Amino acid sequence: MEKVLIANRGEIALRIIRACRELGLKTVAVYSEADRDSLPVRLADQAYCIGPADVTRSYLNIAAIISAAELSGADAIHPGYGFLAENAHFAEVCESCGLTFVGPPVEAIAKMGAKAEALELVRKMGVPIVPGSGGAVNGLDHALAVAEEIGYPVLIKASAGGGGRGMRVAHNKSDLSRALQAAQSEAQNAFGSGDVYLEKYIEEPRHIEIQVFGDRHGNILSLGERDCSIQRRNQKLLEEAPSTALTPELRRQMGDAAVRAAQSVGYYNSGTVEFLLDRENRFYFIEMNTRIQVEHPVTEMVTGLDLVKEQIRVAAGEKLSFGKDDVKINGWAIECRINAEDPWANFGPRAGRITAYLPAGGPGIRVDSAVYPGCVVPPYYDSLLAKLVAWGRDRDEAIDRAERALAEFVVEGVPTTIPFHQRVLSNAFFRRGEVYTNFVQRRIFP
Amino acid sequence: MEKVLIANRGEIALRIIRACRELGLKTVAVYSEADRDSLPVRLADQAYCIGPADVTRSYLNIAAIISAAELSGADAIHPGYGFLAENAHFAEVCESCGLTFVGPPVEAIAKMGAKAEALELVRKMGVPIVPGSGGAVNGLDHALAVAEEIGYPVLIKASAGGGGRGMRVAHNKSDLSRALQAAQSEAQNAFGSGDVYLEKYIEEPRHIEIQVFGDRHGNILSLGERDCSIQRRNQKLLEEAPSTALTPELRRQMGDAAVRAAQSVGYYNSGTVEFLLDRENRFYFIEMNTRIQVEHPVTEMVTGLDLVKEQIRVAAGEKLSFGKDDVKINGWAIECRINAEDPWANFGPRAGRITAYLPAGGPGIRVDSAVYPGCVVPPYYDSLLAKLVAWGRDRDEAIDRAERALAEFVVEGVPTTIPFHQRVLSNAFFRRGEVYTNFVQRRIFP
Repeated sequence: MEKVLIANRGEIALRIIRACRELGLKTVAVYSEADRDSLPVRLADQAYCIGPADVTRSYLNIAAIISAAELSGADAIHPGYGFLAENAHFAEVCESCGLTFVGPPVEAIAKMGAKAEALELVRKMGVPIVPGSGGAVNGLDHALAVAEEIGYPVLIKASAGGGGRGMRVAHNKSDLSRALQAAQSEAQNAFGSGDVYLEKYIEEPRHIEIQVFGDRHGNILSLGERDCSIQRRNQKLLEEAPSTALTPELRRQMGDAAVRAAQSVGYYNSGTVEFLLDRENRFYFIEMNTRIQVEHPVTEMVTGLDLVKEQIRVAAGEKLSFGKDDVKINGWAIECRINAEDPWANFGPRAGRITAYLPAGGPGIRVDSAVYPGCVVPPYYDSLLAKLVAWGRDRDEAIDRAERALAEFVVEGVPTTIPFHQRVLSNAFFRRGEVYTNFVQRRIFP
Repeated sequence: MEKVLIANRGEIALRIIRACRELGLKTVAVYSEADRDSLPVRLADQAYCIGPADVTRSYLNIAAIISAAELSGADAIHPGYGFLAENAHFAEVCESCGLTFVGPPVEAIAKMGAKAEALELVRKMGVPIVPGSGGAVNGLDHALAVAEEIGYPVLIKASAGGGGRGMRVAHNKSDLSRALQAAQSEAQNAFGSGDVYLEKYIEEPRHIEIQVFGDRHGNILSLGERDCSIQRRNQKLLEEAPSTALTPELRRQMGDAAVRAAQSVGYYNSGTVEFLLDRENRFYFIEMNTRIQVEHPVTEMVTGLDLVKEQIRVAAGEKLSFGKDDVKINGWAIECRINAEDPWANFGPRAGRITAYLPAGGPGIRVDSAVYPGCVVPPYYDSLLAKLVAWGRDRDEAIDRAERALAEFVVEGVPTTIPFHQRVLSNAFFRRGEVYTNFVQRRIFP
């Protein structure tokens, strides 16, 4: 491998350029017309415009990206996260064009992308999933029987659904008949099908994910967990590693389950297995993300490993550069996503020009960002401006540093989520590690 | 302790503010008129102007600094490095005014500041010093006898001297008589005294220093070494930890010697014991610096400890927050001092306005700097703009990261030492760890 094309933009494009430079590889940036003046374009060895601002005509434009790879003489493509990162077809096209896809095998992307089948696959490997009816329920009696078996409270979900419509919680038998009817009729109206299924309702879960890493030689390891419970509408806002909820024994169990899930699809490269963890420390597989995650730096800071360089090395056929005994969790790391959003206006995204910018620095602070003073935040893409990652010997020190760094971080020209993070970090429940997926609605915006 | 006055400027003032913030302490900045718009002044809770640009009337103005402490209600003073940091009188004034001096005991500063006496003190504790005549030599026969005893080559130095004048190297007996005469007459002309003394000439030494840390309860530990061999006219330019020259056994020996040196003066707080290390791994005490060093971040990055916070805690009477077993060297760190100097014009300092500034970021990179876009670098003080510190799992990764980070670091408006560091890092001798105090003159500017 000699030259890597980065099929992405923003901070992750810069992150990949950095990894390539450290490995002595040449880089090719691709960009939409809206990103002409972006930092990755300036810092890559070569750069190709692949279309207008509209993502379907640029960052999702497979033909244009493959052309840029061929024109530039790239021999590998790193997809980053989002856009084409979990598109099995794209990975397949890369390979058939003789371009190394820096990611997992095509098959693994496809299998984990089919969410229902993925659940069945991992369940067969002994990975716990949320108990439920499996398929649609046949009327009230069936629903009552399932609920009896899995235990209350239960969640009723539209089979054809999404976005919370056709969804109801039933806390006991008498709830269930009313909730079932309501869910069915809402599902019928919303999706044209009244089919609903039952799942155990996990109250106040944590979102815990396990970072796994494998090579093409059959080695696959867990690199420990990240706690991503601080979310707003399923969007992660703040992540940490390790989690206050995990004992060494639970970490081992979840790590083993994650590795089994990955093995069920012959996985290699970087992957993340997402779980819900309930108050009784039972964990349930939700899905596997077959790419590098936004929040990978917290794992890097507590393990000392460079996951993006490892992705590239593994894609080039090398063995993992570390063994099980090399994976040690050292200290604590917290990532705050600094987004161009107004946290007091329902996190509405805000585009504009950055009139002043000075990232935080000093001990224990890492900033991943493609922002520079005077750059423009376009309205077409996600609103992530910078990832501020604070490391400490323990969680308290990591929090103290994150607070110190947020207070000195200068971003002017657009509103940001900095004040939101300050509210989270100074919250007494957060300090005590009492974080669940309803933390933001319950503790910050009650 | 509740409020700390920082009797310094630039990056170290900001470093101390950061430490105080993380500890929940209030901060007071003091500044000269030239530093009115500096970042530490903006970020401290309070700020007092203590005089004009001239250091003797501001940063060395003890009366003005003590007044600012009293006016602001500060209960402690951190001196940083340089300026008043190793001024025993200042430390004494602080204590007599009821202000906690964040540093070692007054006595220890005074004793280590008297260089000749310090050598004698540590020698008595079994710490090796450079062998020599001790005092002035009585003519050629005495010189020949001393040289015979300590072995050639020997260095002849003016007793009243400094700056290299009256200094000669003799490689053998026949050299010695000529060199002695030349040194004596040069010393006579330069200093009005022809007295000279002999010292063993250490060829191609490394500059290795040991970071020690002690509390007021009798605990004192070595935190390992820093290799500061990359120098130009005794000014350090690039430092790393650990050193390629040290085996675990040598590290233990030098650490023990450094602790004994510190104990010889009843030391506590942060200190650095400087040694020369010869090609046969013999080490010789040169001096002890009784303050935090510019290059302390490389030790922080490989140990995970926060030395400035530890200084403050120890000054407040706390015990060391770590024991011997907690001090583990993890990976490798390299610091590049980015100075406002023209490396191709004999490192001449250059003042001016910073027209563009964007520090490097991403994995393994720490930047300590008080620069911001548009700030002015005044001509009155040292030329340090930023410390770029790169951490890696091993030395090669740390070098790769430092190179990557230097290439993306934006400083415009004044020339900097960035291109010099790029020359050092890409040098084959440096890559192999063959660094001695003559590296810069021999390998970079031969």
